[in-house]
Amino acid sequence: MTRTIVASATREVIIGFDQPFCVIGERINPTGRKKLAAEMIAGNFETVIKDALEQVAAGATMLDVNAGVTSVNPNETEPGLLVQTMEIVQGLVDVPLSIDSSVTAAIEAALKIAKGRPLVNSVTGEEEKLEAILPLCKKYDVPVVAISNDETGISMDPDVRFAVAKKIVERAMDYGIKPCDIVVDPLVMPIGALGDAGRQVFSLLYRLRNELKVNTTCGLSNISFGLPHRHGINAGFIPMVIGAGMTSAIMNPCRPQEMEAVRAANVLNGTDPNCTNWIKTYKDYQSHVAGSAPAPQAASAGEGGRRRGGRAARSGGGA
Amino acid sequence: MTRTIVASATREVIIGFDQPFCVIGERINPTGRKKLAAEMIAGNFETVIKDALEQVAAGATMLDVNAGVTSVNPNETEPGLLVQTMEIVQGLVDVPLSIDSSVTAAIEAALKIAKGRPLVNSVTGEEEKLEAILPLCKKYDVPVVAISNDETGISMDPDVRFAVAKKIVERAMDYGIKPCDIVVDPLVMPIGALGDAGRQVFSLLYRLRNELKVNTTCGLSNISFGLPHRHGINAGFIPMVIGAGMTSAIMNPCRPQEMEAVRAANVLNGTDPNCTNWIKTYKDYQSHVAGSAPAPQAASAGEGGRRRGGRAARSGGGA
Repeated sequence: MTRTIVASATREVIIGFDQPFCVIGERINPTGRKKLAAEMIAGNFETVIKDALEQVAAGATMLDVNAGVTSVNPNETEPGLLVQTMEIVQGLVDVPLSIDSSVTAAIEAALKIAKGRPLVNSVTGEEEKLEAILPLCKKYDVPVVAISNDETGISMDPDVRFAVAKKIVERAMDYGIKPCDIVVDPLVMPIGALGDAGRQVFSLLYRLRNELKVNTTCGLSNISFGLPHRHGINAGFIPMVIGAGMTSAIMNPCRPQEMEAVRAANVLNGTDPNCTNWIKTYKDYQSHVAGSAPAPQAASAGEGGRRRGGRAARSGGGA
Repeated sequence: MTRTIVASATREVIIGFDQPFCVIGERINPTGRKKLAAEMIAGNFETVIKDALEQVAAGATMLDVNAGVTSVNPNETEPGLLVQTMEIVQGLVDVPLSIDSSVTAAIEAALKIAKGRPLVNSVTGEEEKLEAILPLCKKYDVPVVAISNDETGISMDPDVRFAVAKKIVERAMDYGIKPCDIVVDPLVMPIGALGDAGRQVFSLLYRLRNELKVNTTCGLSNISFGLPHRHGINAGFIPMVIGAGMTSAIMNPCRPQEMEAVRAANVLNGTDPNCTNWIKTYKDYQSHVAGSAPAPQAASAGEGGRRRGGRAARSGGGA
């Protein structure tokens, strides 16, 4: 059974086919958020702190941390800012983190100060990336997100995307990194532009799970780009990718409709034993406020994680 | 490609892997609805009429019609009452109907007066049922729902349920009925009682689609029986069964959350070309009224059906 282990200083989370879906909170990311970028450049981390606390309270299993505030000289600014952001976030919440950067020096700087076992986000099939990122993953013994594109871009042929993922897994093995430490992102296209985007991902997930036997992730909300009522599309997409074998996603956990879909899919996929988390979350749910589900009660305990080295945080578990 | 054709007097609907999910409205059924049963016995069809109109307006592709008002002497009362109900419903709406009865005489009486090509609901793997129902389906050239249980009851072993379905398909072929006219119900158990109920159904659907190559249906809301916030579980279950290959369900189309899940899954499954129906339905959706999605505009046109012998009802279609 493929198990990707990530951890904060105090909490270990397993990403795996038999585990609750791993929700990687996407909010701490200044890309496309000018106000947040300006704040972070000015050394103001109020929004970062708010986003960290809110996402964990909403049920995030992990948090993605990105400090890409500028495309100008990122090699100079990003390492220091990413380290600063990581330190603030890991001092605040106890979920494992994902180090999200396209700057190798920033990833290495963050790996040096990260507690536990973070996830590196990401490597691609590009030669330069493979040679820069994989040695770091080996050196720090951390798992990595592998995005299935390469120098030729993103192929519209799912077979090519599968081949790129396979190449990354094989190259990682050359560096001594096990396949269980590669979390493949098959790349999700907007369904409004590419009508086949859903079926492409489902068939890719099936192969990634059954042939490569790897864990998987995606930038979930890409699927609904450009469509009205995006939350509805996202909330339908989540059970479908979970059913097809996806084990994590980078998404916004502060959206009740999407998180409800995650929790329902966990029940239906058999990873919420005895429906414990569902019942805990929705036992007092009022149908007239449909779409605004309450946040989980045991917010600080997250969902699906467990104390590292301690007993299981979830009570009433079973099969 | 497996295609089950059902029709009213004026409208033909195809149930198939490449078609929008077929929503069979479940409301016209006095089982567990004492008030409706009393009304129908008294010859009052106001609720039947209301349920028929509301379900079609909400987007039902077909309507199930059941007149099982009593377990006492159903052979005497049900044929007449089912005929009466069918005639009222088919005079009112133009979607195809499903003739739902456990009384063979009632099914035959309804088949005699049904317009178009109704679906018979249902036959099981029980010898007595096979011998009673299959000749009727052949005689009237209509498709039938095949429930995968037999004299031994409902097996908890999915392999046995698959074998029962296969037996029904084979027996139907002996009667000259093609597999495309068998719509298998793999039987959905409550996930609150049986944690494996979801995965059982998904694996059964996969085999029914790929090995038996038949269309499928289920009583959808069974999955959430006994749990809080059942609509949330149902809405997560719908995309998962559609992703696993299910092509229809007997469900309540008047629940916006469930119908939203159907529409999203159609988009993602590639059966809502150019997202036409999604955009039409949700273009003015306001997120603050999440959970109370508007009914589709072209209500009387249903969704996914087309005029029999006429041009496609859905505009802007494509691949």
